[in-house]
Amino acid sequence: MKKLINNPADVVKEELEGIALAHADLVKVYYDPNYIVRADAPVKGKVGVISGGGSGHEPMHGGFVGKGMLDAACPGAVFTSPTPDQMLEATKAVNGGAGVLHIVKNYTGDIMNFEMAADLARGEGIEIEAVVINDDVAVEDSLYTAGRRGVGLTVLTEKIVGAAAEKGLPLKKVADLCREVNAAGRTMGMALTSCTVPHAGKPTFDLPEDEMEIGIGIHGEPGRKRMKLKSADEITEMLIEPVISDLPFKSGDDVLLFVNGMGGTPLIEQYIVYRKAAEICKKHGLKVVRSLVGPYITSLEMAGISITLLKMNDEYVKLWDAPVLTPGMRWGI
Amino acid sequence: MKKLINNPADVVKEELEGIALAHADLVKVYYDPNYIVRADAPVKGKVGVISGGGSGHEPMHGGFVGKGMLDAACPGAVFTSPTPDQMLEATKAVNGGAGVLHIVKNYTGDIMNFEMAADLARGEGIEIEAVVINDDVAVEDSLYTAGRRGVGLTVLTEKIVGAAAEKGLPLKKVADLCREVNAAGRTMGMALTSCTVPHAGKPTFDLPEDEMEIGIGIHGEPGRKRMKLKSADEITEMLIEPVISDLPFKSGDDVLLFVNGMGGTPLIEQYIVYRKAAEICKKHGLKVVRSLVGPYITSLEMAGISITLLKMNDEYVKLWDAPVLTPGMRWGI
Repeated sequence: MKKLINNPADVVKEELEGIALAHADLVKVYYDPNYIVRADAPVKGKVGVISGGGSGHEPMHGGFVGKGMLDAACPGAVFTSPTPDQMLEATKAVNGGAGVLHIVKNYTGDIMNFEMAADLARGEGIEIEAVVINDDVAVEDSLYTAGRRGVGLTVLTEKIVGAAAEKGLPLKKVADLCREVNAAGRTMGMALTSCTVPHAGKPTFDLPEDEMEIGIGIHGEPGRKRMKLKSADEITEMLIEPVISDLPFKSGDDVLLFVNGMGGTPLIEQYIVYRKAAEICKKHGLKVVRSLVGPYITSLEMAGISITLLKMNDEYVKLWDAPVLTPGMRWGI
Repeated sequence: MKKLINNPADVVKEELEGIALAHADLVKVYYDPNYIVRADAPVKGKVGVISGGGSGHEPMHGGFVGKGMLDAACPGAVFTSPTPDQMLEATKAVNGGAGVLHIVKNYTGDIMNFEMAADLARGEGIEIEAVVINDDVAVEDSLYTAGRRGVGLTVLTEKIVGAAAEKGLPLKKVADLCREVNAAGRTMGMALTSCTVPHAGKPTFDLPEDEMEIGIGIHGEPGRKRMKLKSADEITEMLIEPVISDLPFKSGDDVLLFVNGMGGTPLIEQYIVYRKAAEICKKHGLKVVRSLVGPYITSLEMAGISITLLKMNDEYVKLWDAPVLTPGMRWGI
């Protein structure tokens, strides 16, 4: 295992210490339980928006904490759900009196722990809404998840919903918007290589030198199919066509096209995939009104990509363009 | 070779097509010869700032084209110097009548071709200044370079000098500032793994599973030493101590601390390195007034990091904080 780490047991703690030092102007970090909150939390009268999940997907979620996006993030151990006490403390830390939204990716452990945290928070008098993100069209109902997994759309949802909360919308409206955005987007990913969880010390799965896996999950969960490596254009088509047909996206739709690097894939390759994805969108009559290209939801050093499409409207475009000031996404401020 | 590409010969062209599609609001891309210019170029009365070099280091340089940073970038083939005709056409495209600054990383081919382009541009009546970036303390005068190589400091220089040009400073002042910034920064990098140039089809070098290379160049040029893999803390110390002693940085100095991922290194590891680097800065009495963490100057999918320190003053801080709107660096707009 070749990694820039000290002790596998200290990876998340030391990462958080690095984030705290590098971004002291944007976020505050708390330990035992671990959570990251925006520097000015709690913002009085504003709905708090929090998310969380296993570490190893950086910049998501901790890198999205700040003005205009998340109020807090709860990082679990690598590829492991955070605990209810993390979520409860984060919820209390960002409660400005207007309630708190939990954005939860659809994994059994995340759901269970966020539900428990919500119950505990309600017990302390905090109004909670929870929305589950489930955008991955690759696999439904597996050993690992009930329903579709939550993947790339989470990034877009956190930006749009975070902007709505920043504008001062009430909890019910923010939560409804979150559900709508989740319903309007789909994702599929693939891997060229596995990644290695520090604690495990060896690759999560083996993939021969001439093979790839289509439909992979962000923790290396099995996808749809293993096959011989194909060209970037063929792979792009194999990812985006199921995304388009699943919602379905229809001719005339405005979309946000998000090509995401899984961690070990160079940006040069992400743009090659973007190029083909944009061409396929055009062929289907989809108008790409906003774009995002880069490693925003990763799987450690896994080589691969995912493609997310989100159906856009004027409201979503305005919220997408709204100012954001976080370590991992920053514009307009 | 596992890559998301079509034909190795088309990698740069298709990447540029992707950039043009994804960032049409920020940049324009020209082909044969290839160059990227900011969407509103040429800006009348403003000094044009251009850079360039081999592809494979994305987002540098093409990702830094836009308001407040570069006016143009010239991408060569992967790890190969761009040609004088690219540089000449880019220079002409961004010439707003106030002259053009060429920011050149210290590699023999880059220097030679930028010199030729400068001569040709001067022949067409454009005033040119050129500044060579040479911040890599690892190796001096090798088979590959005369003097120190140009690496991570290039990113910081392009931001600071681009902001100065945006403010309307004249060519001579912009060029002098560029020389000053270059003199005030140092870098050292290391690799855990090699990368594979698409045309070559196999790794640039071999590095056993339990070894690393300290002082590696961004094209895989030999570093100072190969040795058994060490802890992140030990590696950080081996990189930053030579950086500090080379300039030297002294107790009381304000610095920008830049931890850069080489492409295949997860952000989680970059923050672990940042944490130790910040601690060592503190021990030396250096005050970290600005930070940058992320993959900004990469070597395809190479796993590794580099650490850059730049001595800051009030002017540099203001220029660093100034608005920037490029695909790869964006704030304040």
